[in-house]
Amino acid sequence: MEVRLKILFTSLCHTDVFFWEAKAQDSVFPRIFGHEAAGIVESVGEGVTELAPGDHVLPVFTGECKECAHCKSEESNMCSLLRINTDRGVMLNDGQTRFSINGKPIYHFVGTSTFSEYTVVHVGCLAKINPLAPLDKVCILSCGITTGLGATLNVAKPTKGSSVAIFGLGAVGLGAAEGARLAGASRIIGVDFNSSRFEGAKKFGVTEFVNPKDYKKPVQEVIVEMTDGGVDRSVECTGNTNAMISAFECVHDGWGVAVLVGVPHKDAEFKTHPMNFLNERTLKGTFFGNYKPRSDLPSVVEMYMKKELELEKFITHEVPFSEINKAFELMLKGEGLRCIIRMEG
Amino acid sequence: MEVRLKILFTSLCHTDVFFWEAKAQDSVFPRIFGHEAAGIVESVGEGVTELAPGDHVLPVFTGECKECAHCKSEESNMCSLLRINTDRGVMLNDGQTRFSINGKPIYHFVGTSTFSEYTVVHVGCLAKINPLAPLDKVCILSCGITTGLGATLNVAKPTKGSSVAIFGLGAVGLGAAEGARLAGASRIIGVDFNSSRFEGAKKFGVTEFVNPKDYKKPVQEVIVEMTDGGVDRSVECTGNTNAMISAFECVHDGWGVAVLVGVPHKDAEFKTHPMNFLNERTLKGTFFGNYKPRSDLPSVVEMYMKKELELEKFITHEVPFSEINKAFELMLKGEGLRCIIRMEG
Repeated sequence: MEVRLKILFTSLCHTDVFFWEAKAQDSVFPRIFGHEAAGIVESVGEGVTELAPGDHVLPVFTGECKECAHCKSEESNMCSLLRINTDRGVMLNDGQTRFSINGKPIYHFVGTSTFSEYTVVHVGCLAKINPLAPLDKVCILSCGITTGLGATLNVAKPTKGSSVAIFGLGAVGLGAAEGARLAGASRIIGVDFNSSRFEGAKKFGVTEFVNPKDYKKPVQEVIVEMTDGGVDRSVECTGNTNAMISAFECVHDGWGVAVLVGVPHKDAEFKTHPMNFLNERTLKGTFFGNYKPRSDLPSVVEMYMKKELELEKFITHEVPFSEINKAFELMLKGEGLRCIIRMEG
Repeated sequence: MEVRLKILFTSLCHTDVFFWEAKAQDSVFPRIFGHEAAGIVESVGEGVTELAPGDHVLPVFTGECKECAHCKSEESNMCSLLRINTDRGVMLNDGQTRFSINGKPIYHFVGTSTFSEYTVVHVGCLAKINPLAPLDKVCILSCGITTGLGATLNVAKPTKGSSVAIFGLGAVGLGAAEGARLAGASRIIGVDFNSSRFEGAKKFGVTEFVNPKDYKKPVQEVIVEMTDGGVDRSVECTGNTNAMISAFECVHDGWGVAVLVGVPHKDAEFKTHPMNFLNERTLKGTFFGNYKPRSDLPSVVEMYMKKELELEKFITHEVPFSEINKAFELMLKGEGLRCIIRMEG
């Protein structure tokens, strides 16, 4: 059930940096990072029938076995077999790695390890896409942008003319804003502590900006006042617990829906008065924007091909693979959104 | 916009007892309690066009003006004008009461005050129902039973064959169980600290029982083990914060939905790890089962008339109005579910 891919383009996501820094846990080293990418099938292993050499694919950090209760559910994309596992550095089939150096194993990362000219991925973690799609653009759809986009389109589901607050204007938050723009939201309120992000966010449909530092009162109160009772939908893309609470408490009673996307600290605690729920607010979380990687990701690529979804505006830098450290530097400095890393040349 | 009703039957709900005890706040006295009832229109005031003398109605503690943003929303039933207000003891129109004794006002309770042969109610708080419906049965639909029923049918929305946990097996919880039975749930797990409630709950479709006192581990862990990962839906009907947390944490990742119904203490705090949301669980709250009183309550009466919804099993006692204190005694002792109070005779 394994596929060997030639990676053509990859990009850098915060998750790579987080595990590269390895601050939070025991680390698996040496390891090849990378999980946002696009490539071409080079060869397929036993049991693989859906893919053939030459197919264009996006590898995904989580998978879809199509057989477990989650894959069979219309609602879940949290495959029991192939759900993200940041601790596992080996292939499922035999518990071995497909990378080595001088006879010693090099470990995999989230089943993808795309910072490599060739990689081996379980077929359940590969979305077969339109071969006409430009891989240097759609490679960014295999993680963050799709996560934000789906959080809005599949989970928050704002209606035309509604108001949406987006917490955090990084790539994921701007993906969520892009989803709100596509859904026809009339007010898209961006919330971020970094005011320099506001100008650029306009391209993603953000119509108003709130920097919580500019107010003495909690930002949820500011938003409730701006919107005569609260926004219709909110999407939290920072992972900060206070932002989660604000995102929930800023939605309108009676119908408001808040969606959590940002991954919290392991000791985080979400707290609110239960009356905020009883007044008919909804709080949901999502993983990879509720997209099933194999079944749904090809349709996201088609949204780009039909020029509905705009990807170019997310791509702010490009470097050859030999200069990958520049991509890390940009991200650590908080500059730009996505840096495309070209594997060839 | 006011209607004078002759009340024929009323019943007693915990909310009456809670405000009669007046432990929690400044009290409005003297006051006529009562909000679960059925009656017949005696006369209508200026502006009332939808009702005429002789119409059969259920008065409701919350209303539907049909003009505010909530009434116009398909999702909300939290009318801005007529939403429950436990502090107000007067009519909206003139700030006066319609009851008095020796020239001194007697205050209203939640706009209904049904412990009275006649009462005056805003037209927005009256549901016009099928005149063939027996008022001594359907009177219990104007509060608790409908709240539980709607929490399941309108908000949790279990699918046929699914599993549902109900926290609290009082009248509201059994209304929620009845909703799960009507929806075709295959496992309905009742959770209550009082094991004596378990036998009676079987009539409401409850198939399994869990008394948290029988286990050393948190009840959510017990339920997750019983159901191989969690129930599909849960409905919390106690108002206890720990039960709310358990109800949320016992639903399955990927698709589980928990619904809060029970009203919490004013200083309560709901706490959970945000990863419980991110793993695609949903938490919602509801008020009066998301039914709009005027638009939707008549259809609940029809469910009873079609013999889908069973009401008789909720009615465990009946007393004449002169013996209303017996109904209070029964409730304070936790005996029975609903006691019908006959106004005539």
